[in-house]
Amino acid sequence: MNFLTLTSPLDMHLHLRQEAMLQAVAPLSAETFAGAVIMPNLVPPVDSLERVHSYREEILQACGRDDFDPYMALFFRNYTREELEAAREHIIGIKLYPAGITTNSEGGVSQIEEAEPTMRLMEELGIPLHVHGETNGFVMDREAEFLWVYRHLAKTFPKLKIIMEHITTAAAVELLDEYENLHATVTVQHLLITLDDVAGGMLNPHLFCKPIAKRPEDRTALANAALRAHPKLSFGSDSAPHPVHKKECCGCAAGVFTAPIALQILAGFFDQNNALDKLQAFVSDNACRIYGVTPPKKTVKLENKPFSIPAKYGDVVPMWAGQEIPWSVAEIS
Amino acid sequence: MNFLTLTSPLDMHLHLRQEAMLQAVAPLSAETFAGAVIMPNLVPPVDSLERVHSYREEILQACGRDDFDPYMALFFRNYTREELEAAREHIIGIKLYPAGITTNSEGGVSQIEEAEPTMRLMEELGIPLHVHGETNGFVMDREAEFLWVYRHLAKTFPKLKIIMEHITTAAAVELLDEYENLHATVTVQHLLITLDDVAGGMLNPHLFCKPIAKRPEDRTALANAALRAHPKLSFGSDSAPHPVHKKECCGCAAGVFTAPIALQILAGFFDQNNALDKLQAFVSDNACRIYGVTPPKKTVKLENKPFSIPAKYGDVVPMWAGQEIPWSVAEIS
Repeated sequence: MNFLTLTSPLDMHLHLRQEAMLQAVAPLSAETFAGAVIMPNLVPPVDSLERVHSYREEILQACGRDDFDPYMALFFRNYTREELEAAREHIIGIKLYPAGITTNSEGGVSQIEEAEPTMRLMEELGIPLHVHGETNGFVMDREAEFLWVYRHLAKTFPKLKIIMEHITTAAAVELLDEYENLHATVTVQHLLITLDDVAGGMLNPHLFCKPIAKRPEDRTALANAALRAHPKLSFGSDSAPHPVHKKECCGCAAGVFTAPIALQILAGFFDQNNALDKLQAFVSDNACRIYGVTPPKKTVKLENKPFSIPAKYGDVVPMWAGQEIPWSVAEIS
Repeated sequence: MNFLTLTSPLDMHLHLRQEAMLQAVAPLSAETFAGAVIMPNLVPPVDSLERVHSYREEILQACGRDDFDPYMALFFRNYTREELEAAREHIIGIKLYPAGITTNSEGGVSQIEEAEPTMRLMEELGIPLHVHGETNGFVMDREAEFLWVYRHLAKTFPKLKIIMEHITTAAAVELLDEYENLHATVTVQHLLITLDDVAGGMLNPHLFCKPIAKRPEDRTALANAALRAHPKLSFGSDSAPHPVHKKECCGCAAGVFTAPIALQILAGFFDQNNALDKLQAFVSDNACRIYGVTPPKKTVKLENKPFSIPAKYGDVVPMWAGQEIPWSVAEIS
């Protein structure tokens, strides 16, 4: 197959940042995606309906087009019933960060029990819970150690829709089939790389993210789930731009930037695995069903024609900068 | 205890590099150590007696003092009996690198069987074998996957003294007690850090080395062996300087620079664990016995008095640059 047409691709986990970075990266996502779940870990976090409205407005202005829908997420704190009732029509869900686990998550949750009253309200009001599922343990074990929390929440709140964000382990994939109310997103890099690509040869800051890429058997399990478009799994890039001086330095920040190249890389990966027919479900249909969204109509025609990933987008170095990949975007309408 | 006097500390695994870097780092090791095993992975490698002589001469000139003995190692290739007979009085051993496994190891061994005729000669002539024991597998498994090679060599050549260089796993520690002819070195960083320190928070290129730091339980096993001065274990810093532009960049080189601060850090670590009485054995006596060396007399008096690790030594950033550690060097004689 030389061409593949995707309808309304969605990125169900996206960091658009603020100010100049927002201006630079939002249009890149809006070009090829019809919608995206916008992460609320700003400084200060997006934790009020007022902030949701103003941040959404900033994003729309930065994109300057009407075929990209930012699905807003609130930053988890304990909210009142009144707050949640007012917010629910304007948000896709609420994102929970364990305290201090990733970029700008210092104000996150430190005791899961303290979060449960709000979760009960969310369950009642039908507001999904998005979770960065890592402990503060040893870096290769953080997601595995967190899985009991997913189990606990899935059992305690059986009607609460829980999204395990950016899963990275075979064990998390298995959990998808254990509880009806558990869903997940997965990034493009976790389908393709392991810790070897980050730290096996030279140290590669541009492939360093949280959760860190895991073992080969984890990658295999994630890839298998994506390639068959597991019905509870959506694509979420977790594209997380940092300016180059925060990446290529002593003490580099976590985050891989993939937004403008994710669909091209995914097309190559699905093609290579004879699974191109599953890509529409993985990058759009699954998400529409799981989250109950109807994205703007956008058609992205991909072509089996080599594409050189730019060295930089503005001040941000993307994954696989300078490398050639086999698929490119031919036409967007 | 406020003071600790060490006699003739030895660094049984050291990279001194060439040219300007050699001039910069050799004096730093020679200041506090009485001798060191000098790694032969130069470009081109030190793989002839002539190169051993000339490199040793360069080192001595760079040090400019007579109380530091460079113990020279040949780079492993298949050597003739004549070559080995001529070399054996001038070398401490022969260092085997699996091909391509670390800095300048492209000319290493790719099939262990092909190396066995030379190993048989080494066994007969009493020349120790130093091994960088890693496979080309997944970064966290490379040492564990290599252990069968150690077992195989230890059984095949029971009189060959084999040094497992810079061990990083609990499994390698256990192997020490399985075969009489297996010995090991361990670095200072592998007693103190895990992968968390390299990639658990920010990415830290100055703690990135090969073999990479492993799991907490590995660090515990290594620390326990060092703190009781396991009789088959010697200190070998694997101090491996790179200029700062090769560390703080996209694609940083592997190696932690510790030579000028290793003894101070070790004193703090042994003190903290009430094991200061074991440090002399760990940094000198064990090595004298295992390798049969008699180092120049040098007395290093350490003091329980804070020391700020410099941000740089010349163009090289050390481990824990800028941090304060509890022990310092008070006097050298």
